[in-house]
Amino acid sequence: VAHTHSTWATSWAQARRPIPCLGTTHADYFTGAVPCTRPLADDECGDDYERATGAAIVETFAELDPRDVPAVLVASHGPFAWGTSAREAVEHAAALERIAHVAFNTVALAASVTPIPDALHERHFRRKHGATAYYGQLGR
Amino acid sequence: VAHTHSTWATSWAQARRPIPCLGTTHADYFTGAVPCTRPLADDECGDDYERATGAAIVETFAELDPRDVPAVLVASHGPFAWGTSAREAVEHAAALERIAHVAFNTVALAASVTPIPDALHERHFRRKHGATAYYGQLGR
Amino acid sequence: VAHTHSTWATSWAQARRPIPCLGTTHADYFTGAVPCTRPLADDECGDDYERATGAAIVETFAELDPRDVPAVLVASHGPFAWGTSAREAVEHAAALERIAHVAFNTVALAASVTPIPDALHERHFRRKHGATAYYGQLGR
Amino acid sequence: VAHTHSTWATSWAQARRPIPCLGTTHADYFTGAVPCTRPLADDECGDDYERATGAAIVETFAELDPRDVPAVLVASHGPFAWGTSAREAVEHAAALERIAHVAFNTVALAASVTPIPDALHERHFRRKHGATAYYGQLGR
Repeated sequence: VAHTHSTWATSWAQARRPIPCLGTTHADYFTGAVPCTRPLADDECGDDYERATGAAIVETFAELDPRDVPAVLVASHGPFAWGTSAREAVEHAAALERIAHVAFNTVALAASVTPIPDALHERHFRRKHGATAYYGQLGR
Repeated sequence: VAHTHSTWATSWAQARRPIPCLGTTHADYFTGAVPCTRPLADDECGDDYERATGAAIVETFAELDPRDVPAVLVASHGPFAWGTSAREAVEHAAALERIAHVAFNTVALAASVTPIPDALHERHFRRKHGATAYYGQLGR
Repeated sequence: VAHTHSTWATSWAQARRPIPCLGTTHADYFTGAVPCTRPLADDECGDDYERATGAAIVETFAELDPRDVPAVLVASHGPFAWGTSAREAVEHAAALERIAHVAFNTVALAASVTPIPDALHERHFRRKHGATAYYGQLGR
Repeated sequence: VAHTHSTWATSWAQARRPIPCLGTTHADYFTGAVPCTRPLADDECGDDYERATGAAIVETFAELDPRDVPAVLVASHGPFAWGTSAREAVEHAAALERIAHVAFNTVALAASVTPIPDALHERHFRRKHGATAYYGQLGR
């Protein structure tokens, strides 16, 4: 697991907004939005703070496969990313930072933004991941 | 052809907005707006995805001369640039990235923006390109 | 004391806005908002200008402990930071600059922003500072 | 004279907005706003384009002393700066770029911005320039 306070991903975490999938750079790495945890309750900020943070992340992935979305934003805190190796975790954290910057700009430029269509999303994620991958190398 | 996912040009591509010509830096390289392709239909994201992407670019240039506008934004994806050599293609991609950043700022600063007048545009493009060029060297 | 005209902290100072605590990066260093001084009156810009600047800072901390908030924004001017050593003062100035950038982005992304809850704030500040600190090293 | 197409100053030039004096960093270098020329007329973009650009700059300084404001924005083009030496011209161009960035951020952060008071402006400019200067060295 790679945990950073990198500028752009942390900005989304502080705004408590998931990062929607607005382009193929995002789709290359993450299936759908990178989610944001709920805020911690006051009594979760006591002695068990670190454990409560982890539990909030697990809760956020109740209906998501962490292999399809290898990162999360912790509300008011910052991003955590993971992978099949330490190197891949760091690569996902670095990709997330770039994606967060471009998504910030996109939201500023477009009055209303809509996530990319499922078919384009699927094409990009599948050409880099899984049994039918044929394009590029992601930390392998 | 140089294809990048550079931050600022990709932001315009993800917002699905052509980059209007807002200054002479732009006019030095591109005649008029740098266009953005239409979004791909779902059935264009299948096995023929890369070919469909190329076809959408060609479609966008139906009434444009690719020598006058040596770059395009592919919607929800990113920029492609070209030139008479690999080096010029990369130079156009780099110029586009800077132009995309300045255009982003300009749009944020100016409540309403209007492209520069044709006469100024023509002057800048022609002093660097074609038989009557007399100013600077662009990758030659 | 470290005084800079660094880009992002100076932007908040020029906007005459305190930087609210919007995330744990901020809470790690500063308890509550980083305050902004009142503007100087015209007669404070005379021969005693530097002294008047200092007096305005002291006035801003009338009800704040400078050890809890080791930095201030001087209105229309820029940030000043301090610490128990020159090195710590510089570290606080550098942290403030990063925090100011992320806060700028957060404000742009979130229609309305609210400071983080006291309990989360307290947890982060206390795990790095004071008798019960157990996390990380801040310039010590 | 130093002419650049630097990102932030060019953004103000493309937006055709003078840069108001929003802080002491600006006041250290420029007395009052850095002005923006009027747009060129179509018939000024012909064979005499470079001369017409110069004439528009001179016109902008009809009631300004170029020693007090050693830079200008040419509308839809970019910044020009000058000084008593080539080195000082470059320094003014570099300072302008930083000032343009901070002013961009300030405008984004503050719903309404007002230039700094004359007294503060005068204090900063005079402590670095002229017979009574006592603070810092500017390219000397």
